[in-house]
Amino acid sequence: MTEKIIGVLGGMGPAATVDIFQKLLRANPCNTDQEQLRIIIDCNSKIPDRTQYIMHNGPDPMPYLKDSAERLENAGADLIVIPCNAAHYFHAQIQDSVNIAVLHIMQSSFDYILKQYPSVKSVGLLAATSTIQVGLYQKIFEQNGISIVTPNHQYQEDVMSVIFDKVKCGVIDKEASEMICNAGKYLESNGAEAVIAGCTEIPIVLENGDLDVPVVDATDALARMAVKLALE
Amino acid sequence: MTEKIIGVLGGMGPAATVDIFQKLLRANPCNTDQEQLRIIIDCNSKIPDRTQYIMHNGPDPMPYLKDSAERLENAGADLIVIPCNAAHYFHAQIQDSVNIAVLHIMQSSFDYILKQYPSVKSVGLLAATSTIQVGLYQKIFEQNGISIVTPNHQYQEDVMSVIFDKVKCGVIDKEASEMICNAGKYLESNGAEAVIAGCTEIPIVLENGDLDVPVVDATDALARMAVKLALE
Repeated sequence: MTEKIIGVLGGMGPAATVDIFQKLLRANPCNTDQEQLRIIIDCNSKIPDRTQYIMHNGPDPMPYLKDSAERLENAGADLIVIPCNAAHYFHAQIQDSVNIAVLHIMQSSFDYILKQYPSVKSVGLLAATSTIQVGLYQKIFEQNGISIVTPNHQYQEDVMSVIFDKVKCGVIDKEASEMICNAGKYLESNGAEAVIAGCTEIPIVLENGDLDVPVVDATDALARMAVKLALE
Repeated sequence: MTEKIIGVLGGMGPAATVDIFQKLLRANPCNTDQEQLRIIIDCNSKIPDRTQYIMHNGPDPMPYLKDSAERLENAGADLIVIPCNAAHYFHAQIQDSVNIAVLHIMQSSFDYILKQYPSVKSVGLLAATSTIQVGLYQKIFEQNGISIVTPNHQYQEDVMSVIFDKVKCGVIDKEASEMICNAGKYLESNGAEAVIAGCTEIPIVLENGDLDVPVVDATDALARMAVKLALE
């Protein structure tokens, strides 16, 4: 058997970890349990908040991320996905701490958009403020001629409120979807030809079809890439 | 920190593993990621089918179950749950292979019923034929004065069809729920004062409220027990 074991460096947050787990399974539809890929998940919600570290000098998540990546490698994972966009600020360090591939959620989203929507030149980004501020998406997209549009201050506050006060608290309701939708519509009206759900809490309350332009689910793009590599 | 890490020996099947993951999180509602318990999941769908082994001399799952239990212990789990009822046929052997507690889904269900419905003397069982045939529930319940009612041949065929042809194939539809409901109603009409969803695929299509008598979700009872022990 040459199939690879997928490791999930999760817990950031737990609902997003459930979400990528489901998307990994859906990306490889099977008729028996035994056809499905092996997936090992470390859902370590104790990892300090990435936004708090990046923006407010909070506790450093890196020792926790390294510990989890190493556990996954030791448990037999052949590749790692990290269902947290902001955690990709530490991607190079996490990759350095293990001998297996650590996939990159921004790269997976970029590859997905390039394949599905090759004419797109301006993409909206719904993400945590930290992800936007350190330019995790901008780096990859703008180097390749695609501009990134982000919400204004008020809509960005709404996005953060949905992430931290709603989804991370287990509140997945209509108001959360509407708040995210309105922020997405702001991006559309500012030229976005597609909108990335670029925080793993966001696709839980926003799906493709909710906006006039395509919604690109970064979690799903990462899951599909992982399954593709695992089945190769 | 004295909180315990919960290990999930999963993959039997994958949808049931997602289900217990969600139920472990729900059993401990939190307002931030960091309050949530750490959960390590080995979703190894390659484990040979338990029913095939028990009833038809299929490949032996035990070496796989041992491997997974050991991986979870090595990865840091302090206790193990197994979201597969039929796999509890191997419970004593799995427990022998590790130095951490392996919880028992039938015992968790029994404890739950004793606490929630202390007057119940006859319980219906919706489970895989293998689970019924080797008496995994009967052993614990009948020793304690509670009789177990099982479906007749036709309804049992329907239960197996829902488990293997529906839920394990990712088909979670109205027909699956109706077939399970009808089997449950048969148990009611044969004196069951509560019905156990005693195969981890079943609570995915049957919930409390679907029958006139209480539906006891064995997966949920196990998840609650695990969270209680982990927080102690």
